Amino acid sequence: MPIYNAPTKDAQFILHEMLRISETDVPGYAELDPEFTGAVLEEAGKIASNVLHPLNAVGDTEGCRLENGVVYTPTGFKDAFEQVKAGGWPGLDMPEEYGGQNMPYVIGTAVGEMFSASNQAFTMYQGLTHGAASAILAHGTEEQKETYLPKMVSCEWTGTMNLTEPHCGTDLGLMRTKAEPQADGSYKITGQKIFISSGDHDMADNIVHLVLAKIVGGPEGIKGVSLFIVPKFMVNEDGSPGARNAVSVGKIEEKMGIHGNSTCVMNYDGATGWLLGEEHKGMRAMFTMMNEARLGVGMQGLAQADAAYQNALEYAKDRLQGRDVTGVKNPDGPADPLIVHPDIRRNLMDQKSFTEGARAFILWGATMIDRAHRAGDKDADGLVSLLTPVIKGFLTDQGYDMTVQAQQVYGGHGYIEEWGMSQYTRDARIAMIYEGANGVQALDLVGRKLAQDGGKHVMAFFEMVKTFCKDSAGQDEAYDKAFIEPLKAASKDLQAAGMYFMQQGMKNPNNALSGSYDFMHMFGHVCLGLMWARMARTAQAALDAGASDRAFYETKIATGRYYMARRLPATAMHLARIQSGADTVMALEAANF
Amino acid sequence: MPIYNAPTKDAQFILHEMLRISETDVPGYAELDPEFTGAVLEEAGKIASNVLHPLNAVGDTEGCRLENGVVYTPTGFKDAFEQVKAGGWPGLDMPEEYGGQNMPYVIGTAVGEMFSASNQAFTMYQGLTHGAASAILAHGTEEQKETYLPKMVSCEWTGTMNLTEPHCGTDLGLMRTKAEPQADGSYKITGQKIFISSGDHDMADNIVHLVLAKIVGGPEGIKGVSLFIVPKFMVNEDGSPGARNAVSVGKIEEKMGIHGNSTCVMNYDGATGWLLGEEHKGMRAMFTMMNEARLGVGMQGLAQADAAYQNALEYAKDRLQGRDVTGVKNPDGPADPLIVHPDIRRNLMDQKSFTEGARAFILWGATMIDRAHRAGDKDADGLVSLLTPVIKGFLTDQGYDMTVQAQQVYGGHGYIEEWGMSQYTRDARIAMIYEGANGVQALDLVGRKLAQDGGKHVMAFFEMVKTFCKDSAGQDEAYDKAFIEPLKAASKDLQAAGMYFMQQGMKNPNNALSGSYDFMHMFGHVCLGLMWARMARTAQAALDAGASDRAFYETKIATGRYYMARRLPATAMHLARIQSGADTVMALEAANF
Repeated sequence: MPIYNAPTKDAQFILHEMLRISETDVPGYAELDPEFTGAVLEEAGKIASNVLHPLNAVGDTEGCRLENGVVYTPTGFKDAFEQVKAGGWPGLDMPEEYGGQNMPYVIGTAVGEMFSASNQAFTMYQGLTHGAASAILAHGTEEQKETYLPKMVSCEWTGTMNLTEPHCGTDLGLMRTKAEPQADGSYKITGQKIFISSGDHDMADNIVHLVLAKIVGGPEGIKGVSLFIVPKFMVNEDGSPGARNAVSVGKIEEKMGIHGNSTCVMNYDGATGWLLGEEHKGMRAMFTMMNEARLGVGMQGLAQADAAYQNALEYAKDRLQGRDVTGVKNPDGPADPLIVHPDIRRNLMDQKSFTEGARAFILWGATMIDRAHRAGDKDADGLVSLLTPVIKGFLTDQGYDMTVQAQQVYGGHGYIEEWGMSQYTRDARIAMIYEGANGVQALDLVGRKLAQDGGKHVMAFFEMVKTFCKDSAGQDEAYDKAFIEPLKAASKDLQAAGMYFMQQGMKNPNNALSGSYDFMHMFGHVCLGLMWARMARTAQAALDAGASDRAFYETKIATGRYYMARRLPATAMHLARIQSGADTVMALEAANF
Repeated sequence: MPIYNAPTKDAQFILHEMLRISETDVPGYAELDPEFTGAVLEEAGKIASNVLHPLNAVGDTEGCRLENGVVYTPTGFKDAFEQVKAGGWPGLDMPEEYGGQNMPYVIGTAVGEMFSASNQAFTMYQGLTHGAASAILAHGTEEQKETYLPKMVSCEWTGTMNLTEPHCGTDLGLMRTKAEPQADGSYKITGQKIFISSGDHDMADNIVHLVLAKIVGGPEGIKGVSLFIVPKFMVNEDGSPGARNAVSVGKIEEKMGIHGNSTCVMNYDGATGWLLGEEHKGMRAMFTMMNEARLGVGMQGLAQADAAYQNALEYAKDRLQGRDVTGVKNPDGPADPLIVHPDIRRNLMDQKSFTEGARAFILWGATMIDRAHRAGDKDADGLVSLLTPVIKGFLTDQGYDMTVQAQQVYGGHGYIEEWGMSQYTRDARIAMIYEGANGVQALDLVGRKLAQDGGKHVMAFFEMVKTFCKDSAGQDEAYDKAFIEPLKAASKDLQAAGMYFMQQGMKNPNNALSGSYDFMHMFGHVCLGLMWARMARTAQAALDAGASDRAFYETKIATGRYYMARRLPATAMHLARIQSGADTVMALEAANF
């Protein structure tokens, strides 16, 4: 049985020592002092470890089942959902007027990591609801907000997002689901949607489907797509669920992982829906939530990696196998623990340095979202918009790789389902795919975000790195050598790649697009390098100030040194690949593959 | 439903154009002309595509079941096994005197790839038998050989290898299974073994377990381990299976993949066994087969990667999504096929260049094994011994990554079991673990193989690369630039890493061991770089000679150029990691992780 311990201490270090959130001028941040966030995170951690985590394997083993049109979640999910609702967790960062607690997004993110890490499939029921509620909050009429938001903020009703159809995934212009206007202002929605997470289940009184569809007679392609609210049960005058709408579950998909979440084929057979936002502006309404949703998925990459790491670490300390080549470490035992072996450490340090770096990156990104939304800071909005594909693509790719590495520590036991390590990899795998497959993230980064607003945001990023280096260098030679120099080198690689794209992409866009995936990864490494340089500086300052918990800060610095020395050199490889251009990538005719 | 097409053409190119096997002086190779091997491979390909491949998903979905002590394989396995036996495939490279066809190992390997790619779980029943039979062939008495080999070569009886115990995996010295000598020369074997592939099933009349155990009163640790033959049914005087031996299945493990193979917990309760080879020399007997077995696992990495790639390619050609940014390619359709997109090509070219390079590496490695065994060539034996951990570790790591990339091409459909792409990753995952986890391969490479015979074999490897470069350079500028220069650079990186290990490993072995995993991967890249340089030279020669199938050879060269430009630069990253030394890897106390 795997373990899970919420990373409250590490989150607190990032929030208060590195980011100093309560000292920043973002509205709502002043209240976020260490005591307050510590109390929130500790409570969240208890729910994660004691309620959600024990159901993680149950969800994986049982999965969801469809019987006579009704979807049943795994044993225990319903009770746990009641507990999460009772704690007010779903509305943590939702407006007070709809029953939420109005906390900043950064707190929702820190809590979200714990919930996801302890049970991703379960937490998705709440996560999708959050996304759908945010869309209604941003684009709904007052009536729509009053009808749906109080129920959704409490998770009394849950939500879904319906985009994909069998023949249409990334390219939503191919969509066939149609919406026929009715005399009463509603629409009849007809079509089939697939891969609908939390599509149906037995934990809520109603399910609010947000459905992309084309209004009959509207423009062709993506410009004719609108967004609709289609409740499972029609809503009565008094706000209670009424008659069943014409939406049903076609089947539950058999997936590689996240078995505890009901991923459904949804059939809309003239279901009644109401326009959300403007006609033919469905994509815009969807994309409003994109930065948050994608940051949330990047967070899942981190979450699964951390959960897997915690177990790999315990196993490496417990399992006795072989002897330390430099001298026996456990003379009274039949062998030394795995953790004495350099290659096991290399593996664990990869995981640890990724996980802590990613946590800093995610929480920092969440503060940028808060700054953009709460303080109306356009620069923060531009920066987080630039980095969103990096957060989503890099952290889910690397997060997945780390779950695979964690599994490897277990040897043969890692392959046996009973030990739980397989589930971490199988669950983590989806995050590389949904909310825009990672190749699409890379395309978004290189094809759109780099040049956005005349390249202003990427220049601001480089300026931020430069300023940090200037401010931090020259005080401690060891720090400069371990952190500033590698960060500068990696940042230089990234700039060289950006320059290559500008120069060569003009001649042929394929020169840029062939390197997009490598660019996304090198960008991620530079971001984590920056986070580590910041964390190490913070930790050193705490040590210099005579902090009592020296081991914590020294470990932080040592882990950062590992990342800079062992992970950051990847940027040069990515640059070499990028600079080799499109020729070898595009050389073959499709028929000759 | 996935497809599988046997790579006969590519194997023939490698065997006859690149390796020119029938012209080499290895006994048995003269008969291996293109017509003959083509006929063998074509027949094997039919079995793979028509018999084994259709059962791949069946095996995954149904799995094996244990009922009243009897293990049942999935529907259709038994019939398919009969067909494989009837074709004489299990004895392809076994001695004629025991009913085999005495073909070289390289042919068994080429066939093995096809069988594994089409159904890894199924092929393991035969593969384990081959391994066990090889052990008996190498170490058995005449009586043992006569008793077991004819039945095992035909797969009338199958075999298993019993090493692991619950508390003892890599460190076999911790073994507890004991062997008590009996008056009649037999032993009573008592203990529990886990992760026993093909441990029990309903497809053979008897199962011959090879079991590692400690003879009571023998030396402590690994020096007291002996190998025993423990048949499921005692063998009667007339050679037929008789009374049941005291060995039983504890349970079938629930695994991440290879569900069609019965991975069993085996309980030995005073079972009757006979010593195979010498007392206390069990490890030596086991290790005799190690090069072959590990090469076979490396081949599984390639096999799953190729099977997954074939499907990803078809999907990329079929699935219409988005438009080519440089101009519409499918104007009559609603969108262009995925394969027009640069990042999809980057992904597919990674797979293709790995798969074909790995196939060349494996088949070349198999010719080295043949040269060692059939011609008694000690240098070939040393070289293949050096490269065995590279073949096993690098090809299974990369092969797994490629199945993940193939799955990614499918977007959401890649996560749905029905499409079959999840199975390729789940099945491929085990190859990184069994037959020595890949971290142990890296340890073997750096800790043992590099320095073996005074470093003779690694020097021979570098000499081989150097000679190849000298012989090939200077005739074609484009070839030199695309192939020779990157190969030289990568080889230089590898040498620098070796030098670092020598210099720094003396001071502290952890300096070498901390870099072992990176070294294994950079070594693999250099090997595939060498293979690609050889294949490209071969292909160019064919083009120069006016070969009619120009597209095949041009594609080969273009794919090689991709590998050299896009994959080989990884060596510099691995070198940088290695040269950062052990400090950051070993810095933390175990308690501070």
